[in-house]
Amino acid sequence: MKLYSYFRSSASYRVRIALALKGLPYEYAAVHLLRGGGQQHSEVYRDVNPEGLVPTLEDGAHTLTQSLAILEYLEELHPSPALLPSEAIDRAYVRSVAFQLACDVHPINNLRVLQYLSQTIGITDDQKTAWYRHWIDIGITSLEKKLEADRRVGLFVYGDSPTIADICLVPQVWNARRFQISLERYPTITRIAGNAMELDAFVQADPSKQPDAES
Amino acid sequence: MKLYSYFRSSASYRVRIALALKGLPYEYAAVHLLRGGGQQHSEVYRDVNPEGLVPTLEDGAHTLTQSLAILEYLEELHPSPALLPSEAIDRAYVRSVAFQLACDVHPINNLRVLQYLSQTIGITDDQKTAWYRHWIDIGITSLEKKLEADRRVGLFVYGDSPTIADICLVPQVWNARRFQISLERYPTITRIAGNAMELDAFVQADPSKQPDAES
Repeated sequence: MKLYSYFRSSASYRVRIALALKGLPYEYAAVHLLRGGGQQHSEVYRDVNPEGLVPTLEDGAHTLTQSLAILEYLEELHPSPALLPSEAIDRAYVRSVAFQLACDVHPINNLRVLQYLSQTIGITDDQKTAWYRHWIDIGITSLEKKLEADRRVGLFVYGDSPTIADICLVPQVWNARRFQISLERYPTITRIAGNAMELDAFVQADPSKQPDAES
Repeated sequence: MKLYSYFRSSASYRVRIALALKGLPYEYAAVHLLRGGGQQHSEVYRDVNPEGLVPTLEDGAHTLTQSLAILEYLEELHPSPALLPSEAIDRAYVRSVAFQLACDVHPINNLRVLQYLSQTIGITDDQKTAWYRHWIDIGITSLEKKLEADRRVGLFVYGDSPTIADICLVPQVWNARRFQISLERYPTITRIAGNAMELDAFVQADPSKQPDAES
């Protein structure tokens, strides 16, 4: 398999965690989202992924896009270790956490949105920081409340082993820390993220460990 | 089952289509997203859904949030008619289309984001319209290119019966039309949306047909 990835991309980070948890080897193809106006916009990359976003996973002759679709695909083809619970209602809960982060927090703070706000609307850096923090705060606050109230939470979002919910949570926590957002008010979330970082797969997938990492 | 819904909400619209396609009856609980500052922010509704977003589906004692997690849940418990293909690679393709719309287009143009742009950043109505059109245009253009190149496209995104991809596509097309965005440049997408509207389930789920519909 070949993964088109950018070290800081949350969506790429999710797929790296899943591949590491399942012990699947892959070739790393770096796509620099800033250099030269963004390599994701190049004609060569657009032929791989018409959306011009990372990640893309090539599995033999197949090209897969959208990190959450890739996670489900990996789960279906390589079911062990399982990244989803066995009962439908629990799967719905795990997916709802994953989608809450992947649909309602991440896309609003994505690079291209921040670029549009700066370059087209012309907001200041302070406004951009406030925007970023606002959406993380809203998303993480409601998620903390949801997790605190759910008896399925253990070492991880569901019980004591990681699922796609944790795979979405850890990159979001990484992003929050990168933007110096204090997570003290979110004890359940920080505890789960801390437990994840005890696992080698999460450490391997960390942005700092990637071939294209920059300080 | 009981569905907390707002007639114009794309995410609610998706779940309404799935329930109708699978022939599942439900009670409709209207949550007005604008009236009184937004009923989704009320304490009563926050107890149902801490995110303060629609839809929420109650299925007996279970409360489900996040439209795409609900679609997967309905598919697992009520597999006929199938809303996902049988092969993993085709499921990944269908999910990638669904997530492209649900993650990369819809959240950026969601009500609360538009409200923040107007009320906190103070952009003009023209800038808001330009923002809205920009993200739809980017998302729909790349999706059209993807669908044009994929031999799996038939009457619908995958073959000749609807999947979760069409369930996400139709509300997005409805939104684009609501904002007078011309879809002439997207013949595959408009053709598929037209085919969907030949089916009674898509017609029943249309915003105009809901108990809380306004003109």
